[in-house]
Amino acid sequence: MAVGANTPLNLHPVRGFRLGIGSAGIKKPGRKDLVIMEVPVGATLAGVFTRNQFCAAPVVLARRHLETGALPRYLLVNTGNANAGTGEQGLADALRCCQGLAEKMRVDAESIIPFSTGVIGEPLPVDKILAGLDSAIADLDENHWAQAAEGIMTTDTRPKGCSVQFEYQGQTLTLTGISKGAGMIMPNMATMLGYVATDAQVDALLLQRLLSEATERSFNRITVDGDTSTNDACVLVATGASGVEVSDLDPILMERFVAALDEVMLGLAHAIVKDGEGATKFVEVRVEAAANVEEALKVAYTIAHSPLVKTALFACDPNWGRILACVGRAGVENLDVSDVQIWLDDVRIVTDGARSADYREELGQAVMDRESLMIRVHLNRGQVVERVWTTDLSHDYVTINAEYRS
Amino acid sequence: MAVGANTPLNLHPVRGFRLGIGSAGIKKPGRKDLVIMEVPVGATLAGVFTRNQFCAAPVVLARRHLETGALPRYLLVNTGNANAGTGEQGLADALRCCQGLAEKMRVDAESIIPFSTGVIGEPLPVDKILAGLDSAIADLDENHWAQAAEGIMTTDTRPKGCSVQFEYQGQTLTLTGISKGAGMIMPNMATMLGYVATDAQVDALLLQRLLSEATERSFNRITVDGDTSTNDACVLVATGASGVEVSDLDPILMERFVAALDEVMLGLAHAIVKDGEGATKFVEVRVEAAANVEEALKVAYTIAHSPLVKTALFACDPNWGRILACVGRAGVENLDVSDVQIWLDDVRIVTDGARSADYREELGQAVMDRESLMIRVHLNRGQVVERVWTTDLSHDYVTINAEYRS
Repeated sequence: MAVGANTPLNLHPVRGFRLGIGSAGIKKPGRKDLVIMEVPVGATLAGVFTRNQFCAAPVVLARRHLETGALPRYLLVNTGNANAGTGEQGLADALRCCQGLAEKMRVDAESIIPFSTGVIGEPLPVDKILAGLDSAIADLDENHWAQAAEGIMTTDTRPKGCSVQFEYQGQTLTLTGISKGAGMIMPNMATMLGYVATDAQVDALLLQRLLSEATERSFNRITVDGDTSTNDACVLVATGASGVEVSDLDPILMERFVAALDEVMLGLAHAIVKDGEGATKFVEVRVEAAANVEEALKVAYTIAHSPLVKTALFACDPNWGRILACVGRAGVENLDVSDVQIWLDDVRIVTDGARSADYREELGQAVMDRESLMIRVHLNRGQVVERVWTTDLSHDYVTINAEYRS
Repeated sequence: MAVGANTPLNLHPVRGFRLGIGSAGIKKPGRKDLVIMEVPVGATLAGVFTRNQFCAAPVVLARRHLETGALPRYLLVNTGNANAGTGEQGLADALRCCQGLAEKMRVDAESIIPFSTGVIGEPLPVDKILAGLDSAIADLDENHWAQAAEGIMTTDTRPKGCSVQFEYQGQTLTLTGISKGAGMIMPNMATMLGYVATDAQVDALLLQRLLSEATERSFNRITVDGDTSTNDACVLVATGASGVEVSDLDPILMERFVAALDEVMLGLAHAIVKDGEGATKFVEVRVEAAANVEEALKVAYTIAHSPLVKTALFACDPNWGRILACVGRAGVENLDVSDVQIWLDDVRIVTDGARSADYREELGQAVMDRESLMIRVHLNRGQVVERVWTTDLSHDYVTINAEYRS
């Protein structure tokens, strides 16, 4: 199940950035489970990784390789095995995969950035991955974004991608990205896996800043089940092939680039929520007039994670008392509940802390019947607005997670 | 569904404490939905209430009445309607119910302590409750504990009670309690509703301290879905009818009384978890060798609330990577993951932060097949041990909460 139509991906290629899809038979023979992405010489690359302290071996190694200062040349992604909870052996396994690809491409092992996603705690089948590399290398092509979006899927029911172009002084700039993820989704730094490339030219330090900020507004504001993965990672590559440089010296271009980057990142993040395990609803939780970001997010995530709110969403039941109870237990200090207003889309359900006098069940029902809707909470404490996006909790969520692995 | 057998309650009466069950037809005609408990003159009473800031009208009024210093004489409980999110009207409604009972019993309204549980946000049907009072009053009897346990049920599938007696210097002391609750369970002060009485004589200030401490070890350590209710309340009454006084002057008696109180409170709290909505498992999450209580509880609740861990429990799937991921994202500062050990009952699954070398799937499977089991995490950071109790997340949980109200 998933929210909205599964429309074919229309992804613009990014000059200089090639993608190749291969098959290593990690979990099932013949499955596309290997993706290689080629970063051209002269490009810059930024990455954000999970804040889960049990981060997976490929995350540890990816960080190490990026810290060496070596130019990243290839991203190597496998599905079917997360190489997490695997200790020192996991690190050695991830390194062997990097070395294998490095030899074939005649680059240093440090220029390979590894990513894994799948089951936690199983040894990585290194030999299968090494044997599958040639198929992926032979497939490298600037036009293979959509195929790569499929190649990084695990429990996802659909590939996820987003692509934006804009004109600037007679030049066309492109930003294209793909992502994967459906469960264990409460990214804390980045989602399961996301890859975005642009042909803009961007200094590496600036690129990292732009990625971190855009992540904070997109991947770090979605949740399916509150479970932060051990393998979250998101990478942004600027090939520079357009010759157009984004920098602080040109604030107009910067603004347009950030807007385009936000559009791609939000598109990818929302696609993950819509494909959330068992999702039948796409819900924005918007907390307004909070005193600070922390309390706004506390309220938003308390609502977004509440099993009672999520099952009511699944049932299209405007059981707003459950939302109100979340606001009350979110841990906002000295909250004056008589200041709280709550809306479902444009229907006000709570006025000054109690049921709105003109609220009628049919009005709430009409909103809850929608596939996409907003829960809006006004705290009357300050100026801060925060939004998070989430899904409902359905029978399919239980089925998928009770049966995954088996 | 519920964990364990539904054995008949065998509850000792507490001298001086009478309970009466009546029918007010709040949600359904004929349903036992009204319970009155009579506190004898000379008794002491202690109460703990929800920390949800949206606390219900009866909670507000109960606190007010206790603060007046008036001797509490009757506890008035209705099910079917929580009288929460009802604003000023809700307070007026709760007061009218208290006044109605006060008139009939010829006591002050301040000596009535009101409790409500059920749907949030609907107006309390005061006239129905007033009309039902006589049936409950006529039913008052020291031997009606088991009936009262049924009278306070909502989505509970079974009545919950616990009773302990012990001898002290030739006298028999009794502690008996009942509780209700199955969903919206992560008490933060006390569970949905709990009532415990003893015939010991206990000074009011001491009684409050003993209740608060016992609550911290019992009701405040259970969770079904992480949703703290707006109506949680627990009351402890000491009738003094035994003539035996519990006080700091007799530390041996004090120790035995606290042990008996813990046994009753834990019994009631565990009964709520075992009857958790859709529960098929009873799980103790034990975090050992933490540096402080806060981090121990962070880890324990992160595991106990994880939808991925809970669905794996439902599926009897020893998917221990999900537990490890919870430890990693629980927010313990400077956690050295290579110090972490994890067991399922006596089977060690994680050694020094990675899969145990001698772990085999069959061993984990054997534990997961049990109806009651322990997830044990050793952090190697200090001396603190904390335990919380929880359930799995099953299809029935979704069904119950997607259909409740409709």
